[in-house]
Amino acid sequence: MAASQKCLGKGSPAPGPVPKDHIRLYSMRFCPFAQRTRLVLNAKGIKHDIVNINLKNKPDWFLEKNPLGLVPALETPSGHVIYESPITCEYLDEVYPEKKLLPSDPFERAQQKMLLEHFSKVTPYFYKIPVGKTKGEDVSALEAELKEKLAQFNETLVNKKTKLFGGDSITMIDYMMWPWFERMEMIDLKHCLDDTPRLKKWAEHMLEDPTVKATMFSTDTYKVFYKSYMEGNPDYDYGL
Amino acid sequence: MAASQKCLGKGSPAPGPVPKDHIRLYSMRFCPFAQRTRLVLNAKGIKHDIVNINLKNKPDWFLEKNPLGLVPALETPSGHVIYESPITCEYLDEVYPEKKLLPSDPFERAQQKMLLEHFSKVTPYFYKIPVGKTKGEDVSALEAELKEKLAQFNETLVNKKTKLFGGDSITMIDYMMWPWFERMEMIDLKHCLDDTPRLKKWAEHMLEDPTVKATMFSTDTYKVFYKSYMEGNPDYDYGL
Repeated sequence: MAASQKCLGKGSPAPGPVPKDHIRLYSMRFCPFAQRTRLVLNAKGIKHDIVNINLKNKPDWFLEKNPLGLVPALETPSGHVIYESPITCEYLDEVYPEKKLLPSDPFERAQQKMLLEHFSKVTPYFYKIPVGKTKGEDVSALEAELKEKLAQFNETLVNKKTKLFGGDSITMIDYMMWPWFERMEMIDLKHCLDDTPRLKKWAEHMLEDPTVKATMFSTDTYKVFYKSYMEGNPDYDYGL
Repeated sequence: MAASQKCLGKGSPAPGPVPKDHIRLYSMRFCPFAQRTRLVLNAKGIKHDIVNINLKNKPDWFLEKNPLGLVPALETPSGHVIYESPITCEYLDEVYPEKKLLPSDPFERAQQKMLLEHFSKVTPYFYKIPVGKTKGEDVSALEAELKEKLAQFNETLVNKKTKLFGGDSITMIDYMMWPWFERMEMIDLKHCLDDTPRLKKWAEHMLEDPTVKATMFSTDTYKVFYKSYMEGNPDYDYGL
């Protein structure tokens, strides 16, 4: 799999130009934001290669292409660089018309963007709670806040009466949210879904998706990576 | 002008349904985020009415329509509600094809979204600096940071060799950024443009735009509103 290349750090040779019929993703194997773009590339069957970046020690050629040094970033054969995960995903959906992931109706599209905006207030808990735990702090208030936010997403599914957030088949918003749910067990937050049965069912449904299966890692793998990350020495190539 | 209605607060009667050929904007006259949507409505010549909301004392009927109570929010004749300023603006540009403000090229569109993302790191200074000044704090470090960020936008114009951020005519990104520049004099930050001549010229250019003229307030008006706002008693209807 293209995503299985060892990461490139400072001093590494720059990868060659992006082949004409390809698009390139600069990624980090365990990054949930980059996984959004990997999910979209995979779901749409877009020909691509992946260059994994050592985020603690970024190559100069990467910073030249992408001065903020962010992953995910896309590079096109003509040298255009696109970053910020929702922007990369929307770009891919616009340029590659096969299997559209965003709805064609403008209001439904706006609804997905509003949900994504809400979800951007959820993701910080997936960092704050485990960091708090590592420091031996009481994280029960943070967990209560997270549960309250997840309850709103559960409510959205109840109101929509659909299995997924954009209907009964997977659309963009499901892939935008998924990477954090994949990591819930790794950071011992799975119980936060106990009171949100529809959302739990959504997660179970997502787990059956071939694209999710193709881009995911096991909880055991995440645990090893996460430990190394929390110790300040991320093992970006773990398992390769 | 539709934007000149006094604001509605708790206990006020709910406005009637949105007329068939109209769209409704829930706004606050001096809010820079809501101004983005007013600019787009005006630039595209969209038939609309504006309901100004007392943000310190929101009507129950507004919170029922829009539980987060945010402005800007759009309401359609079929009762759909859309909030978050960039989402409202993109929705309007998609639904009303006259005078498209977003470029049709997917990469150019992605570029505008990336610029907007950068700009979202600029707007907080327009709050932090005047608040700091009011408290008698030294804001020189914050001003230096703001200038550095503005220099990047200046650089973007230099590199693009265009008068405006999307080319030589006004596009969406210009309207998304404008409201904060309109308020620079009010909060004594105009000198922050002294070292960024291209950006200063951009602002001068924007000031000549009929849509900008139609939606703006004078610095004197802003100053009165802002004083009342900082004193905790915003005069939302000032000047009506």
